[in-house]
Amino acid sequence: MKNIITVTREFGSGGRELAKRLAAALGYQYYDKEIITAMAQRSHYDATFIENFPYQVHHSFAVYSPAQKMATEILLLERKVILEIAAKGNCVIVGRGADLILRAYQPLNIFVYADNQSRLHRCQVNAPAGENLNEKQLLKKIHEIDKARQNHYLLLGGDTWGRKENYHLCVNSTNLTVKNLVPAVAAYAQAWFKEQA
Amino acid sequence: MKNIITVTREFGSGGRELAKRLAAALGYQYYDKEIITAMAQRSHYDATFIENFPYQVHHSFAVYSPAQKMATEILLLERKVILEIAAKGNCVIVGRGADLILRAYQPLNIFVYADNQSRLHRCQVNAPAGENLNEKQLLKKIHEIDKARQNHYLLLGGDTWGRKENYHLCVNSTNLTVKNLVPAVAAYAQAWFKEQA
Repeated sequence: MKNIITVTREFGSGGRELAKRLAAALGYQYYDKEIITAMAQRSHYDATFIENFPYQVHHSFAVYSPAQKMATEILLLERKVILEIAAKGNCVIVGRGADLILRAYQPLNIFVYADNQSRLHRCQVNAPAGENLNEKQLLKKIHEIDKARQNHYLLLGGDTWGRKENYHLCVNSTNLTVKNLVPAVAAYAQAWFKEQA
Repeated sequence: MKNIITVTREFGSGGRELAKRLAAALGYQYYDKEIITAMAQRSHYDATFIENFPYQVHHSFAVYSPAQKMATEILLLERKVILEIAAKGNCVIVGRGADLILRAYQPLNIFVYADNQSRLHRCQVNAPAGENLNEKQLLKKIHEIDKARQNHYLLLGGDTWGRKENYHLCVNSTNLTVKNLVPAVAAYAQAWFKEQA
């Protein structure tokens, strides 16, 4: 059985950094943007389009719009790419609902979150060149991105995104330098996988 | 600043065992039943009465019943005892709303939870002599105890008991032997305290 870790994270929580460093600490493959790239290579959509696809949850099937058709197509492709990754070997996968898609692989599912102040600060420090949002605008962006992640989760058949019962370990990164937590989280992952063996 | 860890746990999650072993691993004092004992010594209530006090949440202040008066008395005593403990030195405190009472001490707050199947199993293995509940009765007991903890939490001014945002680390103990997780959780605690320094 392969050791697979999925990291789901609130935007601005530092979850991606935690995942990347965790993979390095454990000697596992790391997958993040690579998933999008692989999806783009196999479809007629480009990576930016896939990455920013505005998933919506419709509570009626009366209308099957072109956007819904596209969403289905992207989600199926995503599932395929993630299943291929999981078959390769030990890895850490960030986002993309890998915790749901890989349920049968019994991955260690980690959720990373933080309070608004901490997320704002992290987003300001890591802002892309040219982005100049005030706090209110940035908070709006943070919540919009989380909302999209939530919708994506629902479309994959999940219930409530971020509900602690859906994860094995929930890490609150508020006021922490993520780097300094990595050895302990790596130790936790190793102990956890040993328990499943 | 003293290093204080509070462990809040769902009944049957193994949180108490985790807390006890965590204290031993870190060389911290461990407080659990000791709190009840100290409270009993200073009041005219006995330990069993305090431990099983049926906290209720009233949404009206129109009636201040004898039970409410007793609850207030017990909660004030509890606060006093826990504040004295915190002043003594590094420690791990189980339950009793210590995370709320000691907010000013910036403790590391850990929440331990597990799925129903796993909690049932743990309760069956650790059942007190003479207890002979079937699964349905045991599950009812589990949820009643959690409900009392939730009420206790509300009476101390908390919001939702078990809401991950109120904790720094949430550990899902489903299908795990708690003992084997202790070194990693201890490492996490040490890294976390270092970050606060």
